[in-house]
Amino acid sequence: MVDLPTKASAFIDWYLAVVEEAGLTDKRYGVKGMNIWTPYGFAARRELDRVLVREIEATGSVPVEFPTLIPANEFAKEKEHIKGFDAEVYWVTKGGATDLDIPLVLRPTSETAMYPVFAVWVRSHRDLPLNVYQIVNVFRYETKTTRPFFRVREIHFFEEHTCQVDEAAATARVQSNLAAFRRMAAALALPYLAIRRPEWDKFPGAFYSVAFDTPVDGARTLQLGSVHHYRENFSGPYGIRYEAADGSQRLAHQTTFGLSERLLGAIVAVHGDQKGLVLPTAVAPYEVVIVPILGGASADPVRAAAAELKERLLRAGRRVHLDDGEERPGAKYYRWELRGVPLRLEVGRREAEARSATAVDRLGRKSSVTFDGLEREVGERLAEFDRALSSRAAEAFRGAFVHASTLPELSGSDRVRYLSWCGGEECGHKIEVAISGALLGTPEEGLPFEAGAPGPCIGCGTPEGVRWALAGRPL
Amino acid sequence: MVDLPTKASAFIDWYLAVVEEAGLTDKRYGVKGMNIWTPYGFAARRELDRVLVREIEATGSVPVEFPTLIPANEFAKEKEHIKGFDAEVYWVTKGGATDLDIPLVLRPTSETAMYPVFAVWVRSHRDLPLNVYQIVNVFRYETKTTRPFFRVREIHFFEEHTCQVDEAAATARVQSNLAAFRRMAAALALPYLAIRRPEWDKFPGAFYSVAFDTPVDGARTLQLGSVHHYRENFSGPYGIRYEAADGSQRLAHQTTFGLSERLLGAIVAVHGDQKGLVLPTAVAPYEVVIVPILGGASADPVRAAAAELKERLLRAGRRVHLDDGEERPGAKYYRWELRGVPLRLEVGRREAEARSATAVDRLGRKSSVTFDGLEREVGERLAEFDRALSSRAAEAFRGAFVHASTLPELSGSDRVRYLSWCGGEECGHKIEVAISGALLGTPEEGLPFEAGAPGPCIGCGTPEGVRWALAGRPL
Repeated sequence: MVDLPTKASAFIDWYLAVVEEAGLTDKRYGVKGMNIWTPYGFAARRELDRVLVREIEATGSVPVEFPTLIPANEFAKEKEHIKGFDAEVYWVTKGGATDLDIPLVLRPTSETAMYPVFAVWVRSHRDLPLNVYQIVNVFRYETKTTRPFFRVREIHFFEEHTCQVDEAAATARVQSNLAAFRRMAAALALPYLAIRRPEWDKFPGAFYSVAFDTPVDGARTLQLGSVHHYRENFSGPYGIRYEAADGSQRLAHQTTFGLSERLLGAIVAVHGDQKGLVLPTAVAPYEVVIVPILGGASADPVRAAAAELKERLLRAGRRVHLDDGEERPGAKYYRWELRGVPLRLEVGRREAEARSATAVDRLGRKSSVTFDGLEREVGERLAEFDRALSSRAAEAFRGAFVHASTLPELSGSDRVRYLSWCGGEECGHKIEVAISGALLGTPEEGLPFEAGAPGPCIGCGTPEGVRWALAGRPL
Repeated sequence: MVDLPTKASAFIDWYLAVVEEAGLTDKRYGVKGMNIWTPYGFAARRELDRVLVREIEATGSVPVEFPTLIPANEFAKEKEHIKGFDAEVYWVTKGGATDLDIPLVLRPTSETAMYPVFAVWVRSHRDLPLNVYQIVNVFRYETKTTRPFFRVREIHFFEEHTCQVDEAAATARVQSNLAAFRRMAAALALPYLAIRRPEWDKFPGAFYSVAFDTPVDGARTLQLGSVHHYRENFSGPYGIRYEAADGSQRLAHQTTFGLSERLLGAIVAVHGDQKGLVLPTAVAPYEVVIVPILGGASADPVRAAAAELKERLLRAGRRVHLDDGEERPGAKYYRWELRGVPLRLEVGRREAEARSATAVDRLGRKSSVTFDGLEREVGERLAEFDRALSSRAAEAFRGAFVHASTLPELSGSDRVRYLSWCGGEECGHKIEVAISGALLGTPEEGLPFEAGAPGPCIGCGTPEGVRWALAGRPL
């Protein structure tokens, strides 16, 4: 058994200990920041990906996969984009003993891989919208400290790229993506704020960027993903042109939607506690673990009952593990709590005789389930667990923000600040200096609590064009 | 409409035209041999992967994912292995503007990524067997002509890696893999021969290699995958050692099992015809396409009937497409035949009134299905189609081999040769020269037809230690 560092006072230490002890990742690989997806971590990621796939495909997006390597000349076509990524891409320069004529970039994101091909695919307004996504790994030569799932050099990545007829259609796609993310986050019980990034912090090449942020440790925030409106910024350089219904040639308007393994890190960070992981049912490698209590003389009926539970739940489509090892039950409880399993079913002699099991969810709530109603009752317990987990996270989330009305009030590290901002870049930078962090931007879909109207700008005092904004310290 | 080149006389031209016209791949990417997984190709690949995952997980293997990049020093540890791959790996030498201290290899296969970590994971006999697999992309700097799915530079790859207590356990794992592949191939309706490769053609570093070959065009054969017994060849250099029950330290015996997107190429090559793709149900992006016949005055009942078919089949878990576009039915038939959809349901006014549909499978067999028994009848038609496809492929397969009793008889290009071989390397090379191809090896599970006992060796005439062997021209 390990004692985890205290989450409230030593968040990062706690986080690193949890992901390692729970077996979500293994960092003992020969390249720093490139970690191993262990069986348990991979299983969680697989379930997470299923949530993303389900929700994005419900919006009419279809999966594709573009190559990992991008020729240097294509990579360099959009100037802001290349400036944004130049310092952090890996270069392939040799094949066998031969120097390559054109060096290849390991994709840090796939705009420059896809868009030369989109220029071929998109010919007519009948080819639009083009909504495709891929789930692939991308690569960034990180020079900052790497952390599992939060900041790594090989990143498990979800990226949707779309082409639309005009700016309005692209704006509608952005909204559709925001709605899709709402459904994804709901399945993961993750609260977040959709925040429009300030000009100086948007995605390289974007017209505007909306990011999803969640507080994870006082004023520290984690970006869970983002949606970008590119307008014609990429379709111009890459020549993504179509013939409109009136015969004119027009540039497509583009959008993208990016998510990554950070979502898994966020699940650890937001839901985890001093016992370890707490996994929402949707991503749990095992939704249910069954622990037979074998004390006493007659173990056979207990084993038979445990086996029946497992078989029936498997047949009902549940992800189940029967822990019939030699250890004492307490050690098993400890392990599966550490690993975040939503529901534990305990069955001893008395339960086996009564054809019932004791159900304990990962939030510690105890109840009884009957064999007669097993499939339905387990489904109910899991749904109740997910609801309780969501409520708990939402409550913590609402308490994670505090108002700052002066620049000095930004300096605490206990909570994310909301403040009034005139939208000016100069004031923005004052705010960033004061908080030693970032002006995250303006909430795209409102604040998660009642805040009234904003006051004068925290930076310059103007009452003109003031909006609520968020400031924090991105992890 | 396109006229496809003739499969029987211009196989490669036919193949290239089919994969392109059916939209399985797009080669218009800026790096030769790195192709795009289009929506249709990706969907087929996704179903194919599901078959592999289902069958390998049924044998107790669990998914993991190791990093894409391998440090040069780890890559070089097993001498035969590095010799085998040195000329065809891509090298990452720079991150941003910085030269990397240790260059990184884009994995061509993952032995050298995984085994240093296996050495940490495996401590005791209780950690064994370790059976893990991953489905990832691997990279090879191919200098030969690339062909979609058959030979590409970025390869969609399935690789299982295992550690066993001893040679016998590793042999049993090889057998378990052979059985798993038998089930996979059955789902894909693909006939093949498991062939133990000659010494000079085994996987770099292996103790022995069994490959799965299928004839695709006369004497040309396609390797579909392979299983390798490594003995201690890798566990030695990588230090994969465990404490046995008796307290002694022993090296693990290892096996691997590799498959790739070639399986998709094989499905195209083996099953396809002059109308295009013929996809077994298991990998078809759409199992069923519904074509409403809208001629005449009252289209509404037909539309309603087609919509009902779609809804009910979707609800039954089928992958279905309703083609309700403007084109005439013949153009739709053509397209979906080209794309290989197993079953087409046609519904016109008369069918709608009779609550039935005309079913035409991709082998041209016509029948009627009733709305009353829709789900069951469609399931039956698909199962019959798969059986007929298997039979057709199996029959062609049995006719794809011809006996050669002298070296000159090896020179034809019409069929794969089976022959008697003493097992000697010198005779093996004579055979390879005579056929302008390869001695594929000796059948691991028998020949697919009655051949009696082998005669004297085709190379040296000895009757000693002679076995049946296969020779062909690997694609």
